[in-house]
Amino acid sequence: MSAEPVRSGVRTSDVEHEEPRLHRWEQRTEWPLIGLSVLFFAAYAWTVLQPGMPAKLKVGLDFSMWLTWVVFAVDYVIRLALARRRGRFVARNVFDLVVIAVPMLRQLRVLRLVMVLVLINRRIQGRVRGQVVVYVAGATVLVGVSAALAVLDAERYAPDGTITHFGDALWWTMTTITTVGYGDFSPVTANGKLIAAGLMLAGIALLGVVTGSIASWFVEKFGGMEEQAQQASEAEAADVARTEQLRNEVAELKAEIAALRR
Amino acid sequence: MSAEPVRSGVRTSDVEHEEPRLHRWEQRTEWPLIGLSVLFFAAYAWTVLQPGMPAKLKVGLDFSMWLTWVVFAVDYVIRLALARRRGRFVARNVFDLVVIAVPMLRQLRVLRLVMVLVLINRRIQGRVRGQVVVYVAGATVLVGVSAALAVLDAERYAPDGTITHFGDALWWTMTTITTVGYGDFSPVTANGKLIAAGLMLAGIALLGVVTGSIASWFVEKFGGMEEQAQQASEAEAADVARTEQLRNEVAELKAEIAALRR
Amino acid sequence: MSAEPVRSGVRTSDVEHEEPRLHRWEQRTEWPLIGLSVLFFAAYAWTVLQPGMPAKLKVGLDFSMWLTWVVFAVDYVIRLALARRRGRFVARNVFDLVVIAVPMLRQLRVLRLVMVLVLINRRIQGRVRGQVVVYVAGATVLVGVSAALAVLDAERYAPDGTITHFGDALWWTMTTITTVGYGDFSPVTANGKLIAAGLMLAGIALLGVVTGSIASWFVEKFGGMEEQAQQASEAEAADVARTEQLRNEVAELKAEIAALRR
Amino acid sequence: MSAEPVRSGVRTSDVEHEEPRLHRWEQRTEWPLIGLSVLFFAAYAWTVLQPGMPAKLKVGLDFSMWLTWVVFAVDYVIRLALARRRGRFVARNVFDLVVIAVPMLRQLRVLRLVMVLVLINRRIQGRVRGQVVVYVAGATVLVGVSAALAVLDAERYAPDGTITHFGDALWWTMTTITTVGYGDFSPVTANGKLIAAGLMLAGIALLGVVTGSIASWFVEKFGGMEEQAQQASEAEAADVARTEQLRNEVAELKAEIAALRR
Repeated sequence: MSAEPVRSGVRTSDVEHEEPRLHRWEQRTEWPLIGLSVLFFAAYAWTVLQPGMPAKLKVGLDFSMWLTWVVFAVDYVIRLALARRRGRFVARNVFDLVVIAVPMLRQLRVLRLVMVLVLINRRIQGRVRGQVVVYVAGATVLVGVSAALAVLDAERYAPDGTITHFGDALWWTMTTITTVGYGDFSPVTANGKLIAAGLMLAGIALLGVVTGSIASWFVEKFGGMEEQAQQASEAEAADVARTEQLRNEVAELKAEIAALRR
Repeated sequence: MSAEPVRSGVRTSDVEHEEPRLHRWEQRTEWPLIGLSVLFFAAYAWTVLQPGMPAKLKVGLDFSMWLTWVVFAVDYVIRLALARRRGRFVARNVFDLVVIAVPMLRQLRVLRLVMVLVLINRRIQGRVRGQVVVYVAGATVLVGVSAALAVLDAERYAPDGTITHFGDALWWTMTTITTVGYGDFSPVTANGKLIAAGLMLAGIALLGVVTGSIASWFVEKFGGMEEQAQQASEAEAADVARTEQLRNEVAELKAEIAALRR
Repeated sequence: MSAEPVRSGVRTSDVEHEEPRLHRWEQRTEWPLIGLSVLFFAAYAWTVLQPGMPAKLKVGLDFSMWLTWVVFAVDYVIRLALARRRGRFVARNVFDLVVIAVPMLRQLRVLRLVMVLVLINRRIQGRVRGQVVVYVAGATVLVGVSAALAVLDAERYAPDGTITHFGDALWWTMTTITTVGYGDFSPVTANGKLIAAGLMLAGIALLGVVTGSIASWFVEKFGGMEEQAQQASEAEAADVARTEQLRNEVAELKAEIAALRR
Repeated sequence: MSAEPVRSGVRTSDVEHEEPRLHRWEQRTEWPLIGLSVLFFAAYAWTVLQPGMPAKLKVGLDFSMWLTWVVFAVDYVIRLALARRRGRFVARNVFDLVVIAVPMLRQLRVLRLVMVLVLINRRIQGRVRGQVVVYVAGATVLVGVSAALAVLDAERYAPDGTITHFGDALWWTMTTITTVGYGDFSPVTANGKLIAAGLMLAGIALLGVVTGSIASWFVEKFGGMEEQAQQASEAEAADVARTEQLRNEVAELKAEIAALRR
C-alpha cells in the first residue's frame, strides 16, 4: 500500500490525457459500480449474519452476488477493450484482475468488497492531507467490517473454532488490526487464517499511515521548514533592497550625465 | 487523532478573530470546568475503587457526577447560543456533543473524563514540540487511568471476568495501549470490549506521536536541512558581495563622470 | 537494518572507484551465486518439507548444501585476497563472515539464505523509492518463508512443540512478523526461539520501512516543500525581472553617452 | 525519550559554556563511573544467575552494590555543589535523582544500571545518524538484559510464576520489547509487572527510533530535498551569470566614458 498513492496519482492523470475513451467510461460507470458494491456488501452481510434464512432468500442473495461479479468482470473486459495500450492497462490494474479472479472460491467472495476501495481510489486525487486521513479511516473501517464478516463465515462451523458470533468477530478484528493480539479468539481454519493475514498487513499499513501523517505534521511544524522559509523571504527582501539602491545610483548617474549634456 | 492538531490550531485562531463573544466565554469558563472535571474524576474513581461504600455516600457521589454532566451540557448550550455561525460550531465541536450525549449510559460515564482533554486542547497552541510531547504524555496517562477504572467497573462482577482488581486493570491497560497484548487478562463484557477498542486506538495514536516526534527530530537533524540552510546563506553572502562590487564600479563611474564634468 | 541503506550506498561507489579488481570479481560472480542460493533454498525446503525422504536423497541434498557453503566460503576468501585494503574489507563485510561462520551449526543452516539478501543488496542502488519498497517486500517474504522452514525444522519433533506442520509455521511467522502475537503457536526450543527473535526484529524493521516510506511520501506531498519550491522559483523570477530592468537602464545610459559623444 | 535528545544536546553545550567547573568534574569522573556501573552490572547478574551461592560471596556482592550506590549518590551531591545555578541543575538531572532514590527498594536495584545510559548520554553529541543508531541499539540491548535479570529476580520464587530460568526471561523480554506479546510467559508479581511496563515503553521508543531513522533517510533521499538543493544551486549560477553580464556592460560604459574624456 505504501507506494500505491504515488502510482495511483500518476495513473489518474495518465488516464485523463492518454486514454480519453477509457477515462470517459470510468467516469460514467463510477457511481453505478459503487452502488452495486454496496448492494453486494449488504447481501453478503445478510447471508453471514442470518445463517438460518429461508432457502429461497439465500438463493436470491447468492444470485445477486454472482450477478455483481459478472457485472464487474464485464466492466473489466470493456475497459480492456477501450484501452489504447492494453499491456500497460493490465499491468496497472493487476489488483482489479485479482479481485475478479479470486472470488470464484466461495469463502473469499468478500474480497470483492475491496472493489469499493478501487473505485474510491479512482475518485480521490489525494491533494489534501485531511482527505487522505478520512479516506484511510473509511477504508480501515470497511476492511475491518468485511474481515469480521468473512472470518465469521469461515470459522462459525469449524470444530475447534472460537469465533462463533459477529460480536466475537468484530472484537477479534479490532485486536488483530491494532496488532494487540490477545489470543482469546483466533482463527483455526485455513480461510480464516488467510483473512487474518490480510488484516495484519492492513494493520501495519494503518500504523504506517497514522504515524506518517503525524510525522509529516511534526516535520512541517517543527522541522525548521517555516524558519527556513522565513529566512529565505528575509534574504529575498534584502536582495530587493540592494538592487533598488543600485538602481537609484544608476538613476543619479543618468541625471548627472543629462546635466553634463546640457 | 492524526488530523486533530491541525484542525484545533485553525479553530483557536478562528474563534479568536471571528467569534469574539464565544472566545471570551471559553476563556472565562476554562478553569472552573477543568476543576469540575477533576472533581468528577475523583468521584468516579472513588465509586469504582471502593465498591462496598455506604449507600448515602454513593448517592452523593452519583449526584455530583450528574451535576457535572448538567453543567457541561449547559455550557455547550450557552456556547452554541453565543456562536455567530452555529452550523460551523456544531460541526467543529462534534466531539463535545458526543461526550455530552454518550454518558447517559451508566457504564460509559467515564467518557466524560475526556472533556478534560477537550479543555486542555483549547489551551495548547501547539507551537513547540516539547509542549506537544508533554501534552501527549499527559493525555496518555489520563486515558490509561480512566480506561483502567472503566474496565474494572465493567468487568468486576462479570461471570468469566478476569479483571477484578485495580492492579489487574492497570496492568491490562498497559499491555493493551502498548499493543503487546499478552492475553493473560482480557475483557469479556461488551462494555469492557468497547473500552478496550478505544484504548487500542489510543495506543496506535500514541505510537504515531512517539514515532512522528522522533522522525521529525531526525529529519531536522540529519535530513540535510541544516546543510541546505547553510548553503543558502553562503549563496546569499556571495550575492551580497557581487552586488557590492557592482555598486563600487558604478560609484567609480560616477566619480569619472564628475571628473569629466569639471 | 536502519543504517544499512546509507552504508551500502557508500560501499558500492567506494568499491567501484577504489577497489576495481574486487568490483569486477563481484560483478562476474553475482548471478552464479544467486543461482546457487536459490538451489540451496530449494534443497533446504525439500529436506524440511519431506522429512521421511529416502536416505540417499537426503544425503545428496545435504551434500549439495555443504557444497554451497564451501563455494560461498571460497568466494569470501577470494574477495579478501583481491581487496586492496583488507582491514576495511573485513569491517564492511562482517555480515558475510557471520553468514559463513554460523551455519556450521546444523539448525541455523537457513541463515545461509540471507546471503541472497547480501547479493541483492549489491545490485540495488536504492535511488527510487518504488524499488526500495519492492526490495523490502521481497526480502520480507524471503525472510518469512525461510523462518517458517527453519522453525518447522527446529520444532517438529520437540516434546511440547505446537508447530508441527508447514501451514502452522507460516501462520506463526505471520503473527510474529506483524507483532500481533496471538500465542496460539509459539516456539519452545532454543533454536526456535532464536529464529523467532530474528523474525521479531525483522518485523520491527518492516514496520519502520512501511511507516518511513509513507511518512516520506506525506512529507513530500504535504510538508510544504512544494509550496516552498514554488515560492523560491517565484522569487527567482522576480529577481530576474529586476536585474533585467537594471540592465535596460544601463543600456539607456550607454545610449545617452553615445549621443553625448556625437 | 522522544524529546530527550534535543534537551541533552542543549544541556551539553550549556554545561560547557556556563558551568565550567561542573563540566570539568563530569569529564574527569566519566570513565571511573562507567567502570563502576559495569562492575555493578556484573555483581547484580551474578547474584541473580547463581541463586544458591555461598552466603559470604552474596554478602560481598551486596556490599559492592551498595558501595556503587553510595559513590553515585556522592557524585550527585558534588555535582550539585559545583553547579552555579543549582535549581536548573536539579531540574535538568531529575533522572539522575530518580536513579539514586529508587534503588533503595531491593527489587528495583537494577534501575541503577540505567545510570550507564545517563553516562553514555553525556558523551554522545548526537551529530551523526549512524552514531545515534548504534547508541540506541546498545541501550536497547542493555535495557533488555537488565530487564531479563530483574524479572527473573522478581518472578523466580513467585507461586504462579512462569519465568524461572534466565532463558525464559530473555525470551519474554524479546516478545515484550518488540510488542509481540505471545503470553506464553508473563510476569505475575507487582515488581515483575512494573519492570514489564518499563520494557513496553522501551519497546515503543525503540519502534519510534527505528521508524524515525528510516523515515528521515527516506525523506532525505526521496523527499525532493536533493532536487530542491540542485534547483537552488542552478538558480544561483544563473544569478551569477546575469550579474556578471551587467558588470561587463558597466565596464564597457566606463571604457566609453574614458574614451569620451580623452
